Amino acid sequence: MAFTENVAASRFNLVYLALTVLLLQYVPHCASITQTVGQPWPLPQSYKSGTNVQSLDADTFLFRVVGNDCDLLREAIVRYYKIIFRTAADAAPSHEDEVLRFQPKSDPTVLEWDQYNTDESVLGSLDVKVEDKCVDIGYPSLDMDESYALTVTTGSATLVGKSIWGVMRGLETFSQLVYEVGLGAYQVNDTEIQDFPRFAHRGVLLDTSRHYLSLRSILQNLDAMAYNKMNVFHWHIVDEISFPYESRTFPQLNIQGAYQPAYTHTYTQENVRTVIEYARLRGIRVVPEFDTPGHSLSWGKGQPDLLTKCCTKGVFNGHYGPVDPTVNSTYTFLTGLVDELSKVFADHYFHLGGDEVSFGCWESNPNITQFMNKTGMGRNYAKLEEYYMQRLVDIVAKKNMGYIIWQEVIDNGVKVRPDTVVEVWRSGQEAELAKVTNLGYRAILSSCWYLNYISYGSDWMTYYKCDPQRFNGTSQQKELVIGGELCMWGEYVDSTNVISRTWPRGSAVAERLWSAEEVKFPEAAEARMEEQRCRLIGRGLPAEPVSGAGHCRHEYDPDQ
Amino acid sequence: MAFTENVAASRFNLVYLALTVLLLQYVPHCASITQTVGQPWPLPQSYKSGTNVQSLDADTFLFRVVGNDCDLLREAIVRYYKIIFRTAADAAPSHEDEVLRFQPKSDPTVLEWDQYNTDESVLGSLDVKVEDKCVDIGYPSLDMDESYALTVTTGSATLVGKSIWGVMRGLETFSQLVYEVGLGAYQVNDTEIQDFPRFAHRGVLLDTSRHYLSLRSILQNLDAMAYNKMNVFHWHIVDEISFPYESRTFPQLNIQGAYQPAYTHTYTQENVRTVIEYARLRGIRVVPEFDTPGHSLSWGKGQPDLLTKCCTKGVFNGHYGPVDPTVNSTYTFLTGLVDELSKVFADHYFHLGGDEVSFGCWESNPNITQFMNKTGMGRNYAKLEEYYMQRLVDIVAKKNMGYIIWQEVIDNGVKVRPDTVVEVWRSGQEAELAKVTNLGYRAILSSCWYLNYISYGSDWMTYYKCDPQRFNGTSQQKELVIGGELCMWGEYVDSTNVISRTWPRGSAVAERLWSAEEVKFPEAAEARMEEQRCRLIGRGLPAEPVSGAGHCRHEYDPDQ
Repeated sequence: MAFTENVAASRFNLVYLALTVLLLQYVPHCASITQTVGQPWPLPQSYKSGTNVQSLDADTFLFRVVGNDCDLLREAIVRYYKIIFRTAADAAPSHEDEVLRFQPKSDPTVLEWDQYNTDESVLGSLDVKVEDKCVDIGYPSLDMDESYALTVTTGSATLVGKSIWGVMRGLETFSQLVYEVGLGAYQVNDTEIQDFPRFAHRGVLLDTSRHYLSLRSILQNLDAMAYNKMNVFHWHIVDEISFPYESRTFPQLNIQGAYQPAYTHTYTQENVRTVIEYARLRGIRVVPEFDTPGHSLSWGKGQPDLLTKCCTKGVFNGHYGPVDPTVNSTYTFLTGLVDELSKVFADHYFHLGGDEVSFGCWESNPNITQFMNKTGMGRNYAKLEEYYMQRLVDIVAKKNMGYIIWQEVIDNGVKVRPDTVVEVWRSGQEAELAKVTNLGYRAILSSCWYLNYISYGSDWMTYYKCDPQRFNGTSQQKELVIGGELCMWGEYVDSTNVISRTWPRGSAVAERLWSAEEVKFPEAAEARMEEQRCRLIGRGLPAEPVSGAGHCRHEYDPDQ
Repeated sequence: MAFTENVAASRFNLVYLALTVLLLQYVPHCASITQTVGQPWPLPQSYKSGTNVQSLDADTFLFRVVGNDCDLLREAIVRYYKIIFRTAADAAPSHEDEVLRFQPKSDPTVLEWDQYNTDESVLGSLDVKVEDKCVDIGYPSLDMDESYALTVTTGSATLVGKSIWGVMRGLETFSQLVYEVGLGAYQVNDTEIQDFPRFAHRGVLLDTSRHYLSLRSILQNLDAMAYNKMNVFHWHIVDEISFPYESRTFPQLNIQGAYQPAYTHTYTQENVRTVIEYARLRGIRVVPEFDTPGHSLSWGKGQPDLLTKCCTKGVFNGHYGPVDPTVNSTYTFLTGLVDELSKVFADHYFHLGGDEVSFGCWESNPNITQFMNKTGMGRNYAKLEEYYMQRLVDIVAKKNMGYIIWQEVIDNGVKVRPDTVVEVWRSGQEAELAKVTNLGYRAILSSCWYLNYISYGSDWMTYYKCDPQRFNGTSQQKELVIGGELCMWGEYVDSTNVISRTWPRGSAVAERLWSAEEVKFPEAAEARMEEQRCRLIGRGLPAEPVSGAGHCRHEYDPDQ
């Protein structure tokens, strides 16, 4: 099909009508939820969709780099070419000067598809413009610019972003606007989008300690995040029960602390690099959490004397408690570990944990009591926690890194540096958000987004309704809320079900954190949610059903 | 390693001790549930495990057919050879006279495994004896004999079953007794088992209408059933929302009634044959359900005039209700369909549905009122349902088929034939079981096993505790309870999550239905449940975690 510029708009309208009639055939029978066609998730800040329809030809479609260029951009274009034309694409794309042109082999399938109109105009290209310098070695960050503008009109389409990260978000949106109407046949409606995220921090926590997650699962989750414009992978990498991180400085941490055999339950240095680079290519930050002083039982196996010995009547009873904050060896160890981690992980932020520190073991230990008496803390164990966190924070600060902590650190009255980000996770989120921001700290919310707690039915609607800025506070306080995270704790989750359990339920959180505050009615989002689920499935992810019945044009098939 | 017969038992004990010490290394740290090693699920009726340990050599191990022989048996042996030696096996096995001998290629892995003792005795073979005639063309049935005896002692192992089906169950058990102690290194403890199922009907219902399930998912589920000794696949193949069964007699049922595109949401005749044969090889019956007169909305799309037209003030209002029982065309159609199904499906039983028939539409339709007046039914719609079910049952009976119905048919006072099997699914199961068996009908239970209703945590324990014979009734009544079924309705389940959601939670139901009544304490089963989950994962199924933390030696990896 050649591109024809002078076709009358009225003809397009007819085509659109025909298409609408056609699409009604896709609507599932009786009680299933209707699906939208070619509508983006999360909803852009400003989104106008016209009735003009153009087709895209996988053999000839071009992404034209009209602004700054870099490998990050080219990687993204190649990725999105394959995503958009996935039922047609197959051959590896090749670069051709600054115009990227791909020649997938035609598909020899004999399936008979719904008939589609082949009469409409053809959209030949998308002009892609990065305004700022496009740096290949750059990493996404909390203050990256993710805004973009995307226009599709008759005969032309343009994507402009200040930064490469905004252009990545825009490519994702463009890939969602294009819909399949037959095997290898794609269409797009006229569209005008101005878009930017409501919150800068839009995270997904995965817990790789309680159950080990395969590298494949982690990368699949990064794909899903990119498809939902999430931008922080909060990697809760170690915890009480296992230590799957392979430390080069302290190899015994992993050899002794991982599930056995350690070979099969460890993230090697190379694995970690793979995750960080895969995330970077998608504009996703990787924020590792090494939770202390509690939740650290597995650390003690490979690091003798790190943990507090719990006592009964003053005598060690065989159990271990939180990190022992009273001995210098603890800080020597932490300095060594933080030094390694600051080199391994690329993000400015580091999650220091600090949740659920039980004081019982500290209370039972005579050495700790002696230390506290000597330093004037008396029986104030929050002071001891503060002492520990303060020293840990200083170690991290010396590496010029920022940090995030769980809310208990603040709740226990520990003083932290003013640039600390506090993660609110317990119930009573409104009071806590008010309190944390009143103290002048930045906050992220996860209380209402513990997606590991499953329940029967369409629970995504509950997640959709939760808003991080819904609390009593000044506008300055509201601005200190920089985002939120969904948490997928690992008690009942491993590689067998982590993707299906997280997605598309997590898409509800993604839209809440990206789209405008007014976009808050799940009933209005339902048909788009159905399309988003099928989109994830079409891209190879096992995104589970979230409404009572229905289907996708292409169902999940891991063999494909 | 050569087989040595004269090694003293005391030395074996030492080896066993060493093994025990070794196995302690596998136990997950702190709060995870300990796993058993080489213990069967479901628990056999009589199971004695000794402390003697022998190793098995994948290169030389033999299955010796010492009784009757047939392809069904050989298929099973090849299958279980691959399952038992899956980390070593790779090459296709070959038949060698009546002794089957396989030569897998050695594994060149460089992984360093936990050291294991290489000093113990070697078990060279399993003698397999089918006492009855082993018929290749046979199908499993409700009255098949599934009993078997299995003995493993120093230097010899014997499996005896009256029928091929019992031997299949015994092969499954033998495959579970063998455990891996290093790459390609396997061991088995001395064991004595006498086993038979407590209930003859141990089913899994999958719903392929509300969401379509891929053929692959259905076959994976049959694998999981075999690994748990379940023996009935209740295929709830069509329902209100879609009709994925490709009928040759009435092709429009599928073309109009399936999700679109129908090509991708249909079970072809060849697919159905594949499912039935795959199940047969594993001793699993396939009982199809074509639910009428309710739940049949999707049928009406391709079969005009089958459904009742619902009326408002006597005029058709555009909605359709249950099958119209008052017109002859209905029974002509049903006769044709049942004729086809009786040829396509192999099992003696057919599930006729009959649940949740809403009388409202019948009440609204003047033709139905007229028919009821004429036949003296007045306003008794249960009579109309009885009339319909009676005629349907007669059609099925003419084909010499037995049938199962949902409890409402009985609850509504419909009289059915004395050989009917009634499936109890609503709450109040104890009263219902008492009532149904008091009427002299056989019953199967699913009320407490709706596994589609998920909840957070180890809910398998609840399923484990439910007992189908726990109701007030005589021993004759109890004997009329022939088993039960877990149901995985499809509202929130499709190929993305059907296996992980059904297993190993369904293993709880499997043990309840196979093992002795006294085997009923989930706490006692917990460590074995952990091993069973890892066993399913080791065999390639995404069986999800069911305890708060833990790991498997081999984690789930769909790429392997």
